[in-house]
Amino acid sequence: MNRSYKNQVSKEVMHVGEMASGAKLTVPVYRFNATNSRGSSEQNSPIPNVYIQANMHGAEVQGNAVIYQLLELLGNLHLHADITLVPYANPVGCNHKNGEYTLGRFDPITGVNWNRMYHNNPQLVEQAVAELSGQDDYAIEQGFKALLLQDINNQLDHNIFGLTTGQRIAYQLQKLAHQADIVLDLHTGPISSKHLYCPEYARASASYFNIEHTLLIPNAFDGALDESTFCPWWDLTNALEASGRQVNFNKESFTVELGSQEQIDLDVALTDAKSILCYLQHKGVVTGETFIPDQMTRYACYLKDYKAFYAPMGGMVDYLAEFGKPLKAGEPLARILRMDNYGDGDALHYISLDHEVLPILHFASASVNQGTELYKVFSDFFTL
Amino acid sequence: MNRSYKNQVSKEVMHVGEMASGAKLTVPVYRFNATNSRGSSEQNSPIPNVYIQANMHGAEVQGNAVIYQLLELLGNLHLHADITLVPYANPVGCNHKNGEYTLGRFDPITGVNWNRMYHNNPQLVEQAVAELSGQDDYAIEQGFKALLLQDINNQLDHNIFGLTTGQRIAYQLQKLAHQADIVLDLHTGPISSKHLYCPEYARASASYFNIEHTLLIPNAFDGALDESTFCPWWDLTNALEASGRQVNFNKESFTVELGSQEQIDLDVALTDAKSILCYLQHKGVVTGETFIPDQMTRYACYLKDYKAFYAPMGGMVDYLAEFGKPLKAGEPLARILRMDNYGDGDALHYISLDHEVLPILHFASASVNQGTELYKVFSDFFTL
Amino acid sequence: MNRSYKNQVSKEVMHVGEMASGAKLTVPVYRFNATNSRGSSEQNSPIPNVYIQANMHGAEVQGNAVIYQLLELLGNLHLHADITLVPYANPVGCNHKNGEYTLGRFDPITGVNWNRMYHNNPQLVEQAVAELSGQDDYAIEQGFKALLLQDINNQLDHNIFGLTTGQRIAYQLQKLAHQADIVLDLHTGPISSKHLYCPEYARASASYFNIEHTLLIPNAFDGALDESTFCPWWDLTNALEASGRQVNFNKESFTVELGSQEQIDLDVALTDAKSILCYLQHKGVVTGETFIPDQMTRYACYLKDYKAFYAPMGGMVDYLAEFGKPLKAGEPLARILRMDNYGDGDALHYISLDHEVLPILHFASASVNQGTELYKVFSDFFTL
Amino acid sequence: MNRSYKNQVSKEVMHVGEMASGAKLTVPVYRFNATNSRGSSEQNSPIPNVYIQANMHGAEVQGNAVIYQLLELLGNLHLHADITLVPYANPVGCNHKNGEYTLGRFDPITGVNWNRMYHNNPQLVEQAVAELSGQDDYAIEQGFKALLLQDINNQLDHNIFGLTTGQRIAYQLQKLAHQADIVLDLHTGPISSKHLYCPEYARASASYFNIEHTLLIPNAFDGALDESTFCPWWDLTNALEASGRQVNFNKESFTVELGSQEQIDLDVALTDAKSILCYLQHKGVVTGETFIPDQMTRYACYLKDYKAFYAPMGGMVDYLAEFGKPLKAGEPLARILRMDNYGDGDALHYISLDHEVLPILHFASASVNQGTELYKVFSDFFTL
Repeated sequence: MNRSYKNQVSKEVMHVGEMASGAKLTVPVYRFNATNSRGSSEQNSPIPNVYIQANMHGAEVQGNAVIYQLLELLGNLHLHADITLVPYANPVGCNHKNGEYTLGRFDPITGVNWNRMYHNNPQLVEQAVAELSGQDDYAIEQGFKALLLQDINNQLDHNIFGLTTGQRIAYQLQKLAHQADIVLDLHTGPISSKHLYCPEYARASASYFNIEHTLLIPNAFDGALDESTFCPWWDLTNALEASGRQVNFNKESFTVELGSQEQIDLDVALTDAKSILCYLQHKGVVTGETFIPDQMTRYACYLKDYKAFYAPMGGMVDYLAEFGKPLKAGEPLARILRMDNYGDGDALHYISLDHEVLPILHFASASVNQGTELYKVFSDFFTL
Repeated sequence: MNRSYKNQVSKEVMHVGEMASGAKLTVPVYRFNATNSRGSSEQNSPIPNVYIQANMHGAEVQGNAVIYQLLELLGNLHLHADITLVPYANPVGCNHKNGEYTLGRFDPITGVNWNRMYHNNPQLVEQAVAELSGQDDYAIEQGFKALLLQDINNQLDHNIFGLTTGQRIAYQLQKLAHQADIVLDLHTGPISSKHLYCPEYARASASYFNIEHTLLIPNAFDGALDESTFCPWWDLTNALEASGRQVNFNKESFTVELGSQEQIDLDVALTDAKSILCYLQHKGVVTGETFIPDQMTRYACYLKDYKAFYAPMGGMVDYLAEFGKPLKAGEPLARILRMDNYGDGDALHYISLDHEVLPILHFASASVNQGTELYKVFSDFFTL
Repeated sequence: MNRSYKNQVSKEVMHVGEMASGAKLTVPVYRFNATNSRGSSEQNSPIPNVYIQANMHGAEVQGNAVIYQLLELLGNLHLHADITLVPYANPVGCNHKNGEYTLGRFDPITGVNWNRMYHNNPQLVEQAVAELSGQDDYAIEQGFKALLLQDINNQLDHNIFGLTTGQRIAYQLQKLAHQADIVLDLHTGPISSKHLYCPEYARASASYFNIEHTLLIPNAFDGALDESTFCPWWDLTNALEASGRQVNFNKESFTVELGSQEQIDLDVALTDAKSILCYLQHKGVVTGETFIPDQMTRYACYLKDYKAFYAPMGGMVDYLAEFGKPLKAGEPLARILRMDNYGDGDALHYISLDHEVLPILHFASASVNQGTELYKVFSDFFTL
Repeated sequence: MNRSYKNQVSKEVMHVGEMASGAKLTVPVYRFNATNSRGSSEQNSPIPNVYIQANMHGAEVQGNAVIYQLLELLGNLHLHADITLVPYANPVGCNHKNGEYTLGRFDPITGVNWNRMYHNNPQLVEQAVAELSGQDDYAIEQGFKALLLQDINNQLDHNIFGLTTGQRIAYQLQKLAHQADIVLDLHTGPISSKHLYCPEYARASASYFNIEHTLLIPNAFDGALDESTFCPWWDLTNALEASGRQVNFNKESFTVELGSQEQIDLDVALTDAKSILCYLQHKGVVTGETFIPDQMTRYACYLKDYKAFYAPMGGMVDYLAEFGKPLKAGEPLARILRMDNYGDGDALHYISLDHEVLPILHFASASVNQGTELYKVFSDFFTL
């Protein structure tokens, strides 16, 4: 590795809320500026901006380890972008225990999923088209970015009835993300393979990650960070195209699912950090070391074909289907033990589907109620 | 009371799910048939049907006591309708403890609100208009009711990926509710006044309940039982009206909020049962005793003006505003204690709004995070 | 009120632990020094020390409001002791939500009651008798206090296997409490009357609190703060007495149960603060205003006769027995609704006991499993 | 396998409690009678009795799968004992979800560990010595067993203040266990190696299980099932020995820790079932197939040397130490990531001990507070 670069990371502590005792909820924000950020070769183009966050869901901690490894690696690369990294993005979720485990996915008071609280305002696209369409591409981009930031600031500061705990956290993170051209939100599944949520228009980029499974996401906002940052630009692109103008704003946002929750593995994190650098190198963000994507069969699936399979009965599950290998029709996903039926019914039930699927993740516990989400599968898939 | 009627109640146990151990989740279903249900004066008109359920949210138990008192009272009235009553509607929520309290509002695994899982299929209205519009009003009603029931049966039985735990419970309750003309879903707030969710078109009926506060609900489906039973009929009415035909299907669905959660009071329940009988008498469902609505100022508010006020800071709350009394602009809703600030900041903060509101309910605990829903208020209100 | 005193309160933030994100767990510590603490009339006697804490159990928040009112009042009194006040004593419990409520009584990871983690080392008494018994009373007191503090410091700092989360919090609070002569630990019941845990030897002091119910506690350590501070001195007194020496160390520790949990009421807190000042005035700690204990019948009960009554069946409870009024044999404590039995069993069960009791508190929720602690009662009681 | 035996299993459903909705809490009880139970070769000696239960802690489900495999295997063996098998022993814990995981170890209302609620009455030993010591060994055994059963029945049925939910479950299981000569309580650790809790006097039996780690338990009752069944007999043996009489009652009770919680693996369960049969064959309970214990180094440790190591800081843990391999002084147990310290402190901390230990299990989640139980280790160990 070329050790001649020595990028300095700066750290800021962002205050995102308060608990009942008055304890401050804070999030650490790390920043690298582009190396030689006003150097000769780049002086006429704007410096791009990258935003990477982790651990919005409390139990999904491995992204913090990936950010650790990124911080270690980025210091010694040539950076052509400003890069912001936010581990421990959700200080409520991160510290919320119920029994030994971390309450993962939702606000324990309201039940709302922490990654469904971001903000989208479709009226901004109308406003941008009305106000900015006479200007050049760069001015439109800058103007729309300013509208997005102003809008999220309005939400944070000018609401007499206030914001929910989760909105207050999410909107402050979104303020950072709206300043970026590339957004990576690091998550994990429960017990899971690695997979990537990728907007349909960015599918060419998916092959630069060392991730075998890609979900292709349409332009529909459902509250997640990736959507909240790509949908506005996609809408704007469409609106301009409808008026006869082609603009490529070159914004990409991904949710990167790093594997299973409740686990930290710093060695695997190094591998995943290099996978992210491989993508960032492809986007021209880093140079100085060469990252080459692994050879692998990359499977893809449209979001509409990403299916949850709910347990057809309560019981104790021996999960059988391996992740990332097509499972033929009729082959068992799982067998469910029902000791209460032993002797006067079937104590063991094999569960299968009527068509081939690609299992991606399964529930975190062997104990399931009837209707618990047992597996998520690509029910129709193809190679990228 | 006229003791000459002796209606028999029948009981059925409905199986709505299974836990990990195989334990059956069951719901008791009580039924009265109309008195002399084929008697001379009613023989040419169909017997109407009433559906009343309670305790879909685990902590909201008082509706069970109201159903107890209704069962006691209905036995001695003349019934002009078949009446189905379902206490303990949600056997998961009902028995789910976290610490001393009952986890109220959502599936503890997924965070989804138990009363946001009902089903609505807008395509059925199109189908009904296409298939039934040539027929008489009664045939349209019977035909559409059949479509609703067939659709909910399809959801329950013909989905290869299955249903969530909550959908399986909700859809089976909805099957019972779709057979009814009048639906009452008995809930409570956290710490709360009594209030009524009433579809806008049924506002005249609100005055027959002894409930001072009415929320007027538009025709928008958000997953709740009341909406799932009135929206289809409202849509159908609108669709027929668009084709020039006026039909009044006379369907009414209400969510009745009985006060505070985590409490059983059988004496108050008797009062509330009589309030419901007052409404049912107005609808011609019961005779034999005279129930007269109480004189009271009944306030109403459109759903869009029913506002949650989120805590502007974390702290410990002394709730000051009384329910059901207009609170002038600037008068305190609450004062928030912040002992951590004592001596070097303000330890006591008074919270108020910039316009008059009518406080309806507040959070169940004194301890709140920044962003916890502190109060819900009618922010614009009028008398019915 | 005599406004001539203006005692200054100082504030310190004590660091008691860390969460997974690294967030510091802190506790605010407020201190008053004795007024004119080296004034003429007191210069030859040591300044006594008072320790008051609140909110060790997360849901029991009213003590914070009482400390707020004490801070407001103590500033204007003549203080003859140094006084330390610690609200929000348990930053984990204080901020731990499960649904809307605060997880009250135990570490959510381990289940251990937060008020059963204090430390007691019976060997210190042996050591004190061996090392100190030749000295005068004051030297014994000072020497034993030093042993207690050294021992708790050893626990905190010299354990290669570490301490549990709760021990680390408790021991740091106990360090403060061991420096005091008077210890008040402010708690609440679930839904509860006011009552006082009082060591048997200090029963004369109980009448200075405006609290109608007193539990008399024997010399047995079970992990609570009051016991951890009075048992060592009681043991030492007994050990000295066994060797023929009578010493009164004049140490008193109480657990003060302020009423119900999950509630803040600043007006009631003012009343309770004055009740505490009445006791402190009796002990010579404050002068400058006269606090007179209320006239009331004060009931007492030995701890062995303080009985939990467990629900004999699952069901939904209408709590009937009032607190603080003797309940005759056979009179109902509660009636339990069992809607699942309606029609084919008893839907309503009245629960009573075979002898007179004094109900003190009941469970926080109407929903109980078979075996839930329904009521706690004085099963044998007398007037103080 | 010799298929000539065809033992019939019988099933009974035991009612152990009720939830708030009235839902019955039940436990399935499976029984085999000894093959040819009154056959010639055994007719003069009493039929011994074996009791095996699983899943007292909600998340520890693998024992159910082991019982499934035992039921499959026992049908085809020659049984020289009556065998009772109870899966899903705790219907509250088994079905209690908080988020995706099963609340494992304690009553969610009270925090009391489900395996610390069994009953022990030391007075029975005194009574037995007084009443039975003149009789022969067999009569003493039968008499003492009768006393144990009568006492547990008294606890269940004759307590005017009732029992807790957990006691009611535990005591009914204990009634079954007190009828047995051999008791196996199947548990798991959080993330764990296999290990065995074995009373010190039965250490010779530990080598018949295919379990590498044995904890030797002294004669001290702490509320667990194994203790509740071996302590009374150990006490009685000691009491008789003190009076000069040697009796070997040949009672053995073990807690078998099968590995990690939240997992079902039916293949591993078959292996573990055979390990149990290997022990039961050694005790003369089964014949008909030969089970030979695996060759392995079996490590043992006295309970006093089984140490929990508590996290010295909050953070996210990369668990490094492997189970079952001695870890030298100074070698890392784990490394703890503290992203909040990156740049201005140590982001990565290696944790080690100052002497050699044998790691047995670690915490279930990577996220730990300061003071969370990180690892449990044999801190002083030897080979069996």
